[in-house]
Amino acid sequence: MTSARACVLHAKGDIRIEDRQVAAPDANEVLVRVGAGGICGSDLHYFQDGGFGAIRVREPIILGHEVAGRVEALGSGVSGLAVGQKVALNPSKPCNACRHCLQGMQQHCLDMRFMGSAMRLPHVQGAFRDRIVIDAVQCVPVDDALSLGEAAMAEPLAVVLHSLNQAGSVTGARVLVTGSGPIGLLTLLAARFAGAAEVVMTDVADEPLFLARTLGAFDTVNVAASAADLDRHVQDRGHFDICFECSGAGSALAAAFAAVRPRGTIVRVGIGDIASLPLNMLVAREIRLCGSFRFHAEFAVAASLLSDRRIDVRPLISATYPLAQAKAAFEEAGDRRRATKVQLVFDE
Amino acid sequence: MTSARACVLHAKGDIRIEDRQVAAPDANEVLVRVGAGGICGSDLHYFQDGGFGAIRVREPIILGHEVAGRVEALGSGVSGLAVGQKVALNPSKPCNACRHCLQGMQQHCLDMRFMGSAMRLPHVQGAFRDRIVIDAVQCVPVDDALSLGEAAMAEPLAVVLHSLNQAGSVTGARVLVTGSGPIGLLTLLAARFAGAAEVVMTDVADEPLFLARTLGAFDTVNVAASAADLDRHVQDRGHFDICFECSGAGSALAAAFAAVRPRGTIVRVGIGDIASLPLNMLVAREIRLCGSFRFHAEFAVAASLLSDRRIDVRPLISATYPLAQAKAAFEEAGDRRRATKVQLVFDE
Amino acid sequence: MTSARACVLHAKGDIRIEDRQVAAPDANEVLVRVGAGGICGSDLHYFQDGGFGAIRVREPIILGHEVAGRVEALGSGVSGLAVGQKVALNPSKPCNACRHCLQGMQQHCLDMRFMGSAMRLPHVQGAFRDRIVIDAVQCVPVDDALSLGEAAMAEPLAVVLHSLNQAGSVTGARVLVTGSGPIGLLTLLAARFAGAAEVVMTDVADEPLFLARTLGAFDTVNVAASAADLDRHVQDRGHFDICFECSGAGSALAAAFAAVRPRGTIVRVGIGDIASLPLNMLVAREIRLCGSFRFHAEFAVAASLLSDRRIDVRPLISATYPLAQAKAAFEEAGDRRRATKVQLVFDE
Amino acid sequence: MTSARACVLHAKGDIRIEDRQVAAPDANEVLVRVGAGGICGSDLHYFQDGGFGAIRVREPIILGHEVAGRVEALGSGVSGLAVGQKVALNPSKPCNACRHCLQGMQQHCLDMRFMGSAMRLPHVQGAFRDRIVIDAVQCVPVDDALSLGEAAMAEPLAVVLHSLNQAGSVTGARVLVTGSGPIGLLTLLAARFAGAAEVVMTDVADEPLFLARTLGAFDTVNVAASAADLDRHVQDRGHFDICFECSGAGSALAAAFAAVRPRGTIVRVGIGDIASLPLNMLVAREIRLCGSFRFHAEFAVAASLLSDRRIDVRPLISATYPLAQAKAAFEEAGDRRRATKVQLVFDE
Repeated sequence: MTSARACVLHAKGDIRIEDRQVAAPDANEVLVRVGAGGICGSDLHYFQDGGFGAIRVREPIILGHEVAGRVEALGSGVSGLAVGQKVALNPSKPCNACRHCLQGMQQHCLDMRFMGSAMRLPHVQGAFRDRIVIDAVQCVPVDDALSLGEAAMAEPLAVVLHSLNQAGSVTGARVLVTGSGPIGLLTLLAARFAGAAEVVMTDVADEPLFLARTLGAFDTVNVAASAADLDRHVQDRGHFDICFECSGAGSALAAAFAAVRPRGTIVRVGIGDIASLPLNMLVAREIRLCGSFRFHAEFAVAASLLSDRRIDVRPLISATYPLAQAKAAFEEAGDRRRATKVQLVFDE
Repeated sequence: MTSARACVLHAKGDIRIEDRQVAAPDANEVLVRVGAGGICGSDLHYFQDGGFGAIRVREPIILGHEVAGRVEALGSGVSGLAVGQKVALNPSKPCNACRHCLQGMQQHCLDMRFMGSAMRLPHVQGAFRDRIVIDAVQCVPVDDALSLGEAAMAEPLAVVLHSLNQAGSVTGARVLVTGSGPIGLLTLLAARFAGAAEVVMTDVADEPLFLARTLGAFDTVNVAASAADLDRHVQDRGHFDICFECSGAGSALAAAFAAVRPRGTIVRVGIGDIASLPLNMLVAREIRLCGSFRFHAEFAVAASLLSDRRIDVRPLISATYPLAQAKAAFEEAGDRRRATKVQLVFDE
Repeated sequence: MTSARACVLHAKGDIRIEDRQVAAPDANEVLVRVGAGGICGSDLHYFQDGGFGAIRVREPIILGHEVAGRVEALGSGVSGLAVGQKVALNPSKPCNACRHCLQGMQQHCLDMRFMGSAMRLPHVQGAFRDRIVIDAVQCVPVDDALSLGEAAMAEPLAVVLHSLNQAGSVTGARVLVTGSGPIGLLTLLAARFAGAAEVVMTDVADEPLFLARTLGAFDTVNVAASAADLDRHVQDRGHFDICFECSGAGSALAAAFAAVRPRGTIVRVGIGDIASLPLNMLVAREIRLCGSFRFHAEFAVAASLLSDRRIDVRPLISATYPLAQAKAAFEEAGDRRRATKVQLVFDE
Repeated sequence: MTSARACVLHAKGDIRIEDRQVAAPDANEVLVRVGAGGICGSDLHYFQDGGFGAIRVREPIILGHEVAGRVEALGSGVSGLAVGQKVALNPSKPCNACRHCLQGMQQHCLDMRFMGSAMRLPHVQGAFRDRIVIDAVQCVPVDDALSLGEAAMAEPLAVVLHSLNQAGSVTGARVLVTGSGPIGLLTLLAARFAGAAEVVMTDVADEPLFLARTLGAFDTVNVAASAADLDRHVQDRGHFDICFECSGAGSALAAAFAAVRPRGTIVRVGIGDIASLPLNMLVAREIRLCGSFRFHAEFAVAASLLSDRRIDVRPLISATYPLAQAKAAFEEAGDRRRATKVQLVFDE
């Protein structure tokens, strides 16, 4: 039995660093020394609003589900992992027995345990802690030359790769990404990796668009400054083959309908709410709108693409804070003009 | 040069029966003696509201695009048709030269001429007239034993078959159809023909649901009486593989999201407007929502399925009116408790 | 402990009726009184040739995997089944834990136990026995009005529905079925159920083609009598959208390539060998050739479609033999001019 | 009226350089000064064997369909092109009116005119000539910084992109390419561009495999030296998601079946013949085998990807010969140990 320092949210805005007991790893489990963890939009919603939609923080919860570390100890029966090895932690733990799992749709598992999520009660505790015991199958090795900060990006990159899979093939496609936060920018990187013919990025702030250009965006449009600027990419009845809607803004989704060609695809990534949609355009252009939720097999692919930097996420990590300054980290993460991906680091 | 009697809409509510000159058929054209024509929802919108959405009647327009008749005379160069032959008239005339046509998406033709549509100006004149000259390729032969009223159903059936094609395979699928007007009921017939495992129908009126049951609906739900009745078909995270939304009501679309399983498909058929959608469910269940617009190759399939009554639409033709009583026909067509498909008949 | 009479194959041609001990059903198991069982092509290969390809009968094996019966006793923990209930027995028992199962491809399970198969050693014993203990999940209820002989057709019908799923949507398609044995004829029924526009059947014998016509084939061609007769269905560069190759004959597959349109699909059903294929046509027409192997979710669909006779297989059951005359049954099953599906019946 | 020097094949092995008259470009035509042209496998078959399969050279034919040049003069009505502009020439001229064209399958045009092809009689003359008049729509602009030799690779790259489109999404897939000639190596480059997780190359010669490694192959296997070497990539029931069969060898196709996972895809690229296939594996693994023929929309994509060298084909151009030495060029092109892509160059 050892102990861990954890980043616990007690209520909206109330983050505390607390000690937690850590048991030795059981059979098929691993003790991981966590090195870095990224703050995700859902972490931020918990911190800023105490939840999102119907999902509310109802008891203290350790936040965090984008983390990586080094294996510290192996439980019995674990193979393929070694002490000292760098691993990205897959926060998904599907039951692999319900009807959805047995159809290969583990992201829709009826008994999913997803780290740091307030969806169930008791909440599933998260991974912003310097030590964690976790199932061996959730530990995905990464190259030793990769920083743990980069390795912690496996989770959001898996989200993005999953959204690409919803769209079918991206190779040769004209792609619009609405919203240039971390998910939007990762989509830019992933779409380029997948051979998109062009990727146009939008946002309501100039700073992330500046970054988008350095990352290879074909063009960027600040839709707050001038929504009409997108028109230069929109010819008769739509130009883009695929739009990834990563902003969560209803206006972005409406703009996407105007920008997508007949029979084009709009993938909505991430959590949404109620929004008004131009169904007349959905029908008249036979647009396909589909949601994308989390990931499954894509986590291992993401870890692999990060390992040899075929997708290089270093420009997206905008700041790192020690665990003790977690609150400051969350505050910075909430400022889109300064922050892309803010990460916590833990003493190794 | 001969003459025709036509049903002309001059303005909202202002229907007049007028004479029109009819030229002899030119090369590759056919003169058709029209026998029956069904009143479609768009005809009704023109009559009741003077248009729908941004599309307004701006000059006198002959209504009608669901018609069938007998060939009366052939222009030069026409093969495969004979005088006296029964034909369903395909109201679509794509250019077959624009970029969408050359990709096999003729329904998105950039220069489409669709009979009886106020979308272009001058409007494309319709087919509620006892004689019409039309391109030979728009005349699709039907079996001589088929009534012209049934043959006139080829157009709405083509709309429905096109929507099935958007959904992928329907065979073995659990299907929900929201809205039991003519399009919804044809969807019921087509989904059964395509081997759906079950088809559940909804509406806000009892009369069309009664008809749905006689046509083989697995179950029917009056969502105005008790929306919760649909719940008996909805198990954990959705039951239906596919929903065809044929009502045009925003509430129906919202209910569809709750009823469809993860990775299920919702096809929106027919004209829509702005609607509020639960994007949280779209994302969390990775639902695919797609629009369906008109038809192309499906018209010939529809004519064939009607010809040998593999799809038997006779129960859907609820009333027939002579051309002289067109206004009464339109008024009845607007009363969903009395009318399914109201047709005009022309003296043969 | 009770006993069962079983049809055991000891070697090529050597069928014996023997007693076997039957234990009481364990937890989640069911004791079934088997009523009828159909002789499948693989049973026949075991009997006639001692195996097929690399799969050889290496120890005594109870044959049979197309069976149905009545529940006689329930083990503990079984729900959804009642004593006396009619059930079709699903011969597939996937592990639901290997990488293929967890992707929804249970038919490719790395640890599959399929009843009456000599693929593994010890062989998995089959179901031609009047009593069997089997997992409850393998018992699929059918309507009480359905005969057990019909219910036993759930397995080959599941094979056929699975092959339809490989082809995508069959609705409105022109379908060619090469080979009019039991699988071919079930494909005819299933393709009609799924809304095929036309189904053309071929065989090398007249008798099954005669039956095909009574079952609704659009046309039939005896390719032994005149292979050229198929040409009347083949226009410039191919006519059929989909071909189901159910004969196992190399010549049939070659003919399929000539008959299928550009971008058409050929599904090869059932066990094959080495065959010569015209790759020039595969390439020049961009034909898609895919294999179909067994079934998974389709078994329950098959049981449902049989239950209300939306697919009526009664005309396919050509003869029934009591267990004691199993050898005569196998001999008749090998004579394609007399037999379609030959079934064993067990005293109820 | 001006003149051109052309590379004319009179019979097997009989190449002559001859003068041809060149008319001024008509309306919608362009006179192009050809700069470079690559020798394709079909050119080589014409030269070495006088044809392939049923296609035979029956009259003198100007070879060549992989060419690029500069616009020299514009016919009336041409827009979007300027004198002096570099263009890749698309050798496909579909009718855009037959039933296949109107379904977006122009590569299956019933009246296709493909440059330098002996399929029709009179043969369609090719583009190994220093001047050619061609339809403006067949001239696809490339960046002025691109060499004409690279631009001439647009055609084989289009073939390869088309084959990728047959496979669905390549992103994240494990890819096997059998055959490392120009098409195989371009497939390597294209699969990497499209985000393949890994690409393993095979061949029967070491030289192209050496090049494959420098171009980023994950591994290479000389199957002539040791076919078993491929086994290190083949785990239980197949490893690769997709195989592109680019060798034309029957043994390669058979090996592909063993290497591909259940439900995997094999795309056969290029011209084939009769081959023996293990249908037992096709069925047992439900492998999808599809042909890929030429290209359509992919030509413009290829020109774009070459223009900014997102796909850099320079390492594939192994030799260039002046037109006068065409025969030597063809002889070198036939020696796979020396040649990758051999090109003719014309005086600019």
